[in-house]
Amino acid sequence: MGSNTFGRAFRVTTWGESHGKAIGAVVDGCPAGLSLSENDIHQEMSVRRGGRSPLTTPRKEPDDVEILSGVYEGKTTGAPISLIIYNRDIDSSKYGPIQHLMRPGHANFTYLEKYGIFDPRGGGRASARETACRVAAGAIAKKILVHHGIHAITYLKELSDVKASISDRISYTNYHTASICPDEQALCLMKEKIEHAKVQNDSLGAVIESQFFHLPKGLGDPIYEKLEALIASAMLSIPACKGVEFGAGFKAAAMRGSEHNDIFCLNDTGSVVTETNHSGGVLGGISNGMPLVFRVSMKPTSSIAIPQPTLSMNKESQILTLPEGSRNDPCVAIRAIAVVEAMASIIIADSLLMNRLSRL
Amino acid sequence: MGSNTFGRAFRVTTWGESHGKAIGAVVDGCPAGLSLSENDIHQEMSVRRGGRSPLTTPRKEPDDVEILSGVYEGKTTGAPISLIIYNRDIDSSKYGPIQHLMRPGHANFTYLEKYGIFDPRGGGRASARETACRVAAGAIAKKILVHHGIHAITYLKELSDVKASISDRISYTNYHTASICPDEQALCLMKEKIEHAKVQNDSLGAVIESQFFHLPKGLGDPIYEKLEALIASAMLSIPACKGVEFGAGFKAAAMRGSEHNDIFCLNDTGSVVTETNHSGGVLGGISNGMPLVFRVSMKPTSSIAIPQPTLSMNKESQILTLPEGSRNDPCVAIRAIAVVEAMASIIIADSLLMNRLSRL
Amino acid sequence: MGSNTFGRAFRVTTWGESHGKAIGAVVDGCPAGLSLSENDIHQEMSVRRGGRSPLTTPRKEPDDVEILSGVYEGKTTGAPISLIIYNRDIDSSKYGPIQHLMRPGHANFTYLEKYGIFDPRGGGRASARETACRVAAGAIAKKILVHHGIHAITYLKELSDVKASISDRISYTNYHTASICPDEQALCLMKEKIEHAKVQNDSLGAVIESQFFHLPKGLGDPIYEKLEALIASAMLSIPACKGVEFGAGFKAAAMRGSEHNDIFCLNDTGSVVTETNHSGGVLGGISNGMPLVFRVSMKPTSSIAIPQPTLSMNKESQILTLPEGSRNDPCVAIRAIAVVEAMASIIIADSLLMNRLSRL
Amino acid sequence: MGSNTFGRAFRVTTWGESHGKAIGAVVDGCPAGLSLSENDIHQEMSVRRGGRSPLTTPRKEPDDVEILSGVYEGKTTGAPISLIIYNRDIDSSKYGPIQHLMRPGHANFTYLEKYGIFDPRGGGRASARETACRVAAGAIAKKILVHHGIHAITYLKELSDVKASISDRISYTNYHTASICPDEQALCLMKEKIEHAKVQNDSLGAVIESQFFHLPKGLGDPIYEKLEALIASAMLSIPACKGVEFGAGFKAAAMRGSEHNDIFCLNDTGSVVTETNHSGGVLGGISNGMPLVFRVSMKPTSSIAIPQPTLSMNKESQILTLPEGSRNDPCVAIRAIAVVEAMASIIIADSLLMNRLSRL
Repeated sequence: MGSNTFGRAFRVTTWGESHGKAIGAVVDGCPAGLSLSENDIHQEMSVRRGGRSPLTTPRKEPDDVEILSGVYEGKTTGAPISLIIYNRDIDSSKYGPIQHLMRPGHANFTYLEKYGIFDPRGGGRASARETACRVAAGAIAKKILVHHGIHAITYLKELSDVKASISDRISYTNYHTASICPDEQALCLMKEKIEHAKVQNDSLGAVIESQFFHLPKGLGDPIYEKLEALIASAMLSIPACKGVEFGAGFKAAAMRGSEHNDIFCLNDTGSVVTETNHSGGVLGGISNGMPLVFRVSMKPTSSIAIPQPTLSMNKESQILTLPEGSRNDPCVAIRAIAVVEAMASIIIADSLLMNRLSRL
Repeated sequence: MGSNTFGRAFRVTTWGESHGKAIGAVVDGCPAGLSLSENDIHQEMSVRRGGRSPLTTPRKEPDDVEILSGVYEGKTTGAPISLIIYNRDIDSSKYGPIQHLMRPGHANFTYLEKYGIFDPRGGGRASARETACRVAAGAIAKKILVHHGIHAITYLKELSDVKASISDRISYTNYHTASICPDEQALCLMKEKIEHAKVQNDSLGAVIESQFFHLPKGLGDPIYEKLEALIASAMLSIPACKGVEFGAGFKAAAMRGSEHNDIFCLNDTGSVVTETNHSGGVLGGISNGMPLVFRVSMKPTSSIAIPQPTLSMNKESQILTLPEGSRNDPCVAIRAIAVVEAMASIIIADSLLMNRLSRL
Repeated sequence: MGSNTFGRAFRVTTWGESHGKAIGAVVDGCPAGLSLSENDIHQEMSVRRGGRSPLTTPRKEPDDVEILSGVYEGKTTGAPISLIIYNRDIDSSKYGPIQHLMRPGHANFTYLEKYGIFDPRGGGRASARETACRVAAGAIAKKILVHHGIHAITYLKELSDVKASISDRISYTNYHTASICPDEQALCLMKEKIEHAKVQNDSLGAVIESQFFHLPKGLGDPIYEKLEALIASAMLSIPACKGVEFGAGFKAAAMRGSEHNDIFCLNDTGSVVTETNHSGGVLGGISNGMPLVFRVSMKPTSSIAIPQPTLSMNKESQILTLPEGSRNDPCVAIRAIAVVEAMASIIIADSLLMNRLSRL
Repeated sequence: MGSNTFGRAFRVTTWGESHGKAIGAVVDGCPAGLSLSENDIHQEMSVRRGGRSPLTTPRKEPDDVEILSGVYEGKTTGAPISLIIYNRDIDSSKYGPIQHLMRPGHANFTYLEKYGIFDPRGGGRASARETACRVAAGAIAKKILVHHGIHAITYLKELSDVKASISDRISYTNYHTASICPDEQALCLMKEKIEHAKVQNDSLGAVIESQFFHLPKGLGDPIYEKLEALIASAMLSIPACKGVEFGAGFKAAAMRGSEHNDIFCLNDTGSVVTETNHSGGVLGGISNGMPLVFRVSMKPTSSIAIPQPTLSMNKESQILTLPEGSRNDPCVAIRAIAVVEAMASIIIADSLLMNRLSRL
């Protein structure tokens, strides 16, 4: 029931299969009067495509996003904005031989159980390809955020045993590079790990951290549409995401109240802030003006070139060997950085709009 | 916009403040024909109230739930089921002296920023008191689950440095006790920790784990209503929850694909299962028939008796000292065990219904 | 799926059966800061109860509405407002003898077909009793309308062959009386007709007209949430309503474009108005600042004391004779006047809020 | 908020402007396993395009609908179905001269009031052009209806003073022709009227009647999603629609209960039917198995070639003369026949799915 639609006031509906004719998104509820061009979207797309890393899949995805509606003379009109990305450079012939096999860690088995039918070409709707549409829609949301003075940074926080060492209060103004990790030393080690996994035909997971700065106080709607609840839903809808935490997150479970409570104080400009930010910028589900900080756990890419034992759909024992030339990321988290930021941006743009409804 | 409503086909709307006349829930979309009595609900309520622990708040909450509508001759009729719990044993007079202070880790500051008005009596709508309604509604959802042969266990997995040692595949059939933790040794240590925190006027966080057994394959709706996305949203809507993870969760981030992928095989009865359950029972957002396993991080109760520096709403430095006799749990996670199970049960009941829509 | 919930930003969920313990409504999304007391609601309730007419059912419905949540010190807080009305003066024993019969024009047959179970006491959920909750919730919506300077009049436009003669541009300022029809002469004839039908144990339908003045331009959301679409949905959800029309309505079908088009001009204060109002105040689904005018057709009450041939649920021919002392309105439209105005007020309050989202 | 999305389980989101690159629809929630081809859709499109009448606009709209996603090997997969129709044969240059004028009966004034911006090319989003997407999506809904044995007829019931004389219980089996009216004599007169209006540069309204046969009992969801409420909302969302009525409709207002109540009886096959069908097939908001019958009032096309006095956006008096060669239907109701049937089909397909949720 609208399981392909996301958001309340700012709503995104996506569609399309990895090897279909095209994929796309319809953004409904974008307020009228926002400057918007295809170029605005292309910038975000290039980040997802691996513009900031040579470590992603070699698949050539020019990902040219075309705006089909909702913009007139460079401004949004309040009408739905339809975005389309044609699928090119696709070859579905490889999937024939493995079509009848359950793919470990993959969705083809569960889709078949649910729907009785599955489009196996390139993973169909279950492919991470669909996240391109989220990034395209997120680019529009980000323009709304920028209009409100909100900026974000998102990066690899952990990969294998490498942990990036970044100040909890990193300033986005110092973060100009389009790197996947601002800690240069950690980045170097991460690259090594990924190259190594690639050589071994294996894959790696990672933790991504995202920080949004300058959110106004008051975003998020109790009780069931708390800012964390909305973002958690957004994150766990991303393929391969298996967890999310805010502020101190799982570490909060081992803290004492006297330690975890962020103490209110005034900053230099006389604004209310907190001394620490264990809450991750949200109290009672509502933003408190501190940076919104959260992390997500991305599992390793399930599609690996190493042969794996499995079952056929007829329940016979088989060995799954991915067709030669399959294009899989050794670490799907790299590409997911842009997706995490896009999805959170959609939630925040949506929450900015919804917050207009709170008072008489 | 419906921020007090939860669910799609099985929808729960809750209302009420901690020190108002009553709190309640309206359950809409419960299918007709389900046997339901107030007693069914009282059983679940007693679990939340601390029936399984002497460690929760001394507040006397008889929490008698009255069914006001939607049931005729012991069966649901398809009409909305209205549940009401009267608030008794309340004394709001204590909150006067601290009403003008920002409470660290608490929502009174952000509610005021958002709404310009806050009902401070007992924490108003931001009190964990509202979770009683979730448990009441969840009791109805659980009856639907039982009808489908689904059972759950939920318990404290970690508290401070104590970790419960429980088989990953614990059988709910061996788990009869209404204990807060099935690992007796860990439970003993946990109790000590909580008693100690209580004596120190401090509070503790914890990790809660929940496992649901015998989910049919096919629950959850891609792309944005994946089973994990729905549950993540449900969990992060619970007061004090700061994170959620599924299966291997954050550990998945440090694993390799060859290690994380759960290999398909047949069990004794010839059904498709997986050798491991790193995915936590969900592939591509859809249940695969393995136990649904997730954990949530609960921060320590923010209301502690230790005096804390803070600001008044006028931005003056003050010391917050909770009124003597304030009733706060030393570890809110204990009471949250029932809430976690209730919210997940609502999601699963909802997903069972939604799954009827997947095929022609 | 939320079939008992109405509205988008301003959302009303109602519950309860005619002869259950109570009926009620939860209003979610009411902005914070609105002055609200139980007395505000009682005023509207008395209109529905027949305060303006001796022609309605003799059922004594004190309809005391209690506010259970969402209001603090006389102001709404942004939290859900729970309203409850206890059912008193009920006697379900009479319905036993006719419980197994299909009631012509009534919902007991279709409810049984849909749900397999029906609460027959007083018509259960299918009773017009539930409209009391709409009026209660509508009273809150009306306070928002008054805050925006919007006023309404609603009255019987036609009954049998009596047609009230009212200027198309009646000024609500001249319409102080709580009469069911401002045309005194028509009112007199209407009363006669109703008394006559009552004596004959029969019932009458009627056309109700509603006009809302001073709506700001811009309310309503194209394409599927046009102001007319929202109001049409609201009206056809009212028991006994079988049609709705806006402005010239069905007469528009026989007009020419050159005749129907309302010509734009300036009024005395230099504002844009139209010379005529065939459109009923809505162009392209969006309010144009002219009075919103619509009419609804209410069928005659289906429950009549005249014996009627019918079938038993076992498909045997039977005669349905309503139990003596059954309380049925000879003209349900009288009571519906308040319901029509309440439902439209909810839509307009909702649209006022939604309109805050249209521009950057 | 999703004002461009329609439906609950079967959801349609449309987008696109009259003179933009393309228009389209995303159908989400279509169950998996439905046979579907572009040809299925083209058949319905040709009806809207005026395949059954030479009386519609001369605009050449090949309206080739392309299916971009959601279908694999001729079957729906449960994934969203994206439909696109490219706009060809467009020339926006004509609209320049009238862009600054308020168009009587048209939406350009209200869109500007609401959004501060309006795409005037061909009427932008406010053009009836968008209804092509409804018909395309409705074609998919109709396949679901046919799968359930439901068939419909829709035709001009009234035009000016011509009233088609059709049996209230017309059998769709006798109605093979794709005519706009099955009453040949009336049709002939209607054509004359339309030709006459066209010559006069004027336009006509009309009443359209739709009948759906063989709906199962039980469709529709009380209280606010009654079958009539859903259809009413659908109808009033259609451009130019100003009213809707079910069964006896506005005539019911002048009837007595003893006259209006449909008496239950058994038909030849022993099924429960009613002797008359004043209710239009719906009791208490739920289908009773009788034909669903409703009529809509369509106002005359607002765009007429006759010069009309109006205001400029700067409030100066002006004369509006539509550019020569503007393509406007003399009677928009003809094209709307297909739209009415499509929208109702979407509601019924949606209700068929929703009805799966009513019982345990």
